[in-house]
Amino acid sequence: MRPVTVYDIAREANVSVATVSRVLNNTAPVKKETRDRIVALMNKHQFQPNALARSLTRKETGMIGFILPDITNPFFPEVLSGFDSEARRLGYTYFLCDTISTNEENQRLYDRQYERESQYLGLLMEKQVDGIVMIGGRVDLAKPDPELAREVEELAKRVPIVLLNGSLPKTKLNRVSADQKLGAQLAVQHLIGLGHRDIALIGGYAKMSNTQQRLSGFRSAMKDAGLAVRREWTLTEGFSVEKGQEFAARLLNMKRRPTAMFCLNDLLAIGALKAAHRAGIAVPEELSIVGYDDIPQATYSIPELTTVSLKSQEIGRQAAKTLDKMIAGKKVPALQSIVPELIVRETTAPPPDVPGA
Amino acid sequence: MRPVTVYDIAREANVSVATVSRVLNNTAPVKKETRDRIVALMNKHQFQPNALARSLTRKETGMIGFILPDITNPFFPEVLSGFDSEARRLGYTYFLCDTISTNEENQRLYDRQYERESQYLGLLMEKQVDGIVMIGGRVDLAKPDPELAREVEELAKRVPIVLLNGSLPKTKLNRVSADQKLGAQLAVQHLIGLGHRDIALIGGYAKMSNTQQRLSGFRSAMKDAGLAVRREWTLTEGFSVEKGQEFAARLLNMKRRPTAMFCLNDLLAIGALKAAHRAGIAVPEELSIVGYDDIPQATYSIPELTTVSLKSQEIGRQAAKTLDKMIAGKKVPALQSIVPELIVRETTAPPPDVPGA
Repeated sequence: MRPVTVYDIAREANVSVATVSRVLNNTAPVKKETRDRIVALMNKHQFQPNALARSLTRKETGMIGFILPDITNPFFPEVLSGFDSEARRLGYTYFLCDTISTNEENQRLYDRQYERESQYLGLLMEKQVDGIVMIGGRVDLAKPDPELAREVEELAKRVPIVLLNGSLPKTKLNRVSADQKLGAQLAVQHLIGLGHRDIALIGGYAKMSNTQQRLSGFRSAMKDAGLAVRREWTLTEGFSVEKGQEFAARLLNMKRRPTAMFCLNDLLAIGALKAAHRAGIAVPEELSIVGYDDIPQATYSIPELTTVSLKSQEIGRQAAKTLDKMIAGKKVPALQSIVPELIVRETTAPPPDVPGA
Repeated sequence: MRPVTVYDIAREANVSVATVSRVLNNTAPVKKETRDRIVALMNKHQFQPNALARSLTRKETGMIGFILPDITNPFFPEVLSGFDSEARRLGYTYFLCDTISTNEENQRLYDRQYERESQYLGLLMEKQVDGIVMIGGRVDLAKPDPELAREVEELAKRVPIVLLNGSLPKTKLNRVSADQKLGAQLAVQHLIGLGHRDIALIGGYAKMSNTQQRLSGFRSAMKDAGLAVRREWTLTEGFSVEKGQEFAARLLNMKRRPTAMFCLNDLLAIGALKAAHRAGIAVPEELSIVGYDDIPQATYSIPELTTVSLKSQEIGRQAAKTLDKMIAGKKVPALQSIVPELIVRETTAPPPDVPGA
């Protein structure tokens, strides 16, 4: 089943390829009768401008490269799914480039991911993509090696590049990013509003900018409420279910333990739920848990997770729109900020010692 | 940070590119002293033959196309992660092609996926990949349109193609596939062994070969034990958490209800767990649940899922090995069968009315 091309449509409609292209791209007026005939044929053949057809009609490949760090982390497929819906609507196809390698024991190896990013950037340039989206990896680093930033900056002179949910310091690259600090503030203010004073924070990686911003939101919300951040209740370096379970178990074993845990992603929160269950501690009656990201799994657990939605699909959609404008040579804002939203479900309640709880 | 190429290594080692290539590909003897110097430089620069380097030295692009239906279904990232580890070890990089589109409401649209597959197949040929892996989509259909099969068969004359966990009838394409029927038999025999006689089956799509094979395994295990399959306890057409919850709720509302549910994937089983929880029915004390696939989420739930591992990573690894052999012009078996494994966790127990339960 060879895909139908602009040539097939032109032949069957008895018009030139240029006319089909004009209808397709809306670049110049076409007689109504002719347009209707062409559109009817496109519908009949379920024609969709593919990379090849686009490159014939618009001198573009219609291909976008999407570089991400770890497709097994469910946050990224969500961003991708938003990107997908918009990119396809705009007529693009894309190649996914996953930069994390897996060893024989299925451990994810992060040590060579920046090198992998460079490798994929080179490949995508070689394959002449129209644009590149980058998320995670070096874009997540608070202080990346200047060479990593410079490489992307150089390529951005030749092809439109958009960074998602992060940045490369000292560059002027276009970005679409959720307000990570605000997200953390929303989560912690919700817990404080319920009456919690003893709030722990678990997860993240100290070297990552998203972790630093979420920590900053946590600290500012605590400070605004006159509450102390206890150093022994801030457990970082990890983003997995296993780490969440380990951190939460450690907190629940302390003599003085928190009544609420703010987890820097939903996988950690799922791990915390498991730790509470193993310790015989009821959620949310005896312990409140808030996640972050709002991945689909946030509603799979019993009870369902209260969490912060980063509007990951919106981030993906904006990425596609922005890239399309850049490809068309239009101006776009340097940073498009996405406002996160608190999603209250079943893992938060007043602490046990508060009247009315 | 431009990736280090064979040219850089050759220059620094003061040898020809051909010599570096010989060391790299082990195609001809190189003096030990020279080899040691080259290997030391490769290690120093963490050199890894990328697509470009490979194509210079071996007339290949080093690129594989991986076509899958839905990256947000966690089964596929697992297959991919096994594929990844082996493909990278063999020196390949790959492009992912996701064929399911998403609409504005984030519903996954399956209606145009076969067309998308054709589109991606065309693109991958255009980009001159060394090989193609296909999983899901048309490969899952019990009776695909002959055109869909013919298209892949034609392309397979020009580039090595491997089909995973499925087939295209009346073609001689190479396949790596889990024994789906055996997997279902293992699950149902486990339930029967615990004393269950009233076993329901939920999920799957009747037109898909994997569903037909799992249904066949279910029926044969029931028949072998002299147990009846009740039509009203076989609820198909769905693979999501939501569908699992809906099917299970319907079963739990029946006058005569099953003591065990065999779910055709883990997402359905997670939905069944939620339905049981909502109905106040204890798992596994009052109801046993078995999943299928063994995705990472199978251990996120409380209780953790008893399920059937399809060895998804092993399937991925075998796909990479097989494709590599085909690219090198070597013979490979037409079908490599992967033996599934029952993973007993916490959602299965004897039924409530059996002594000793």
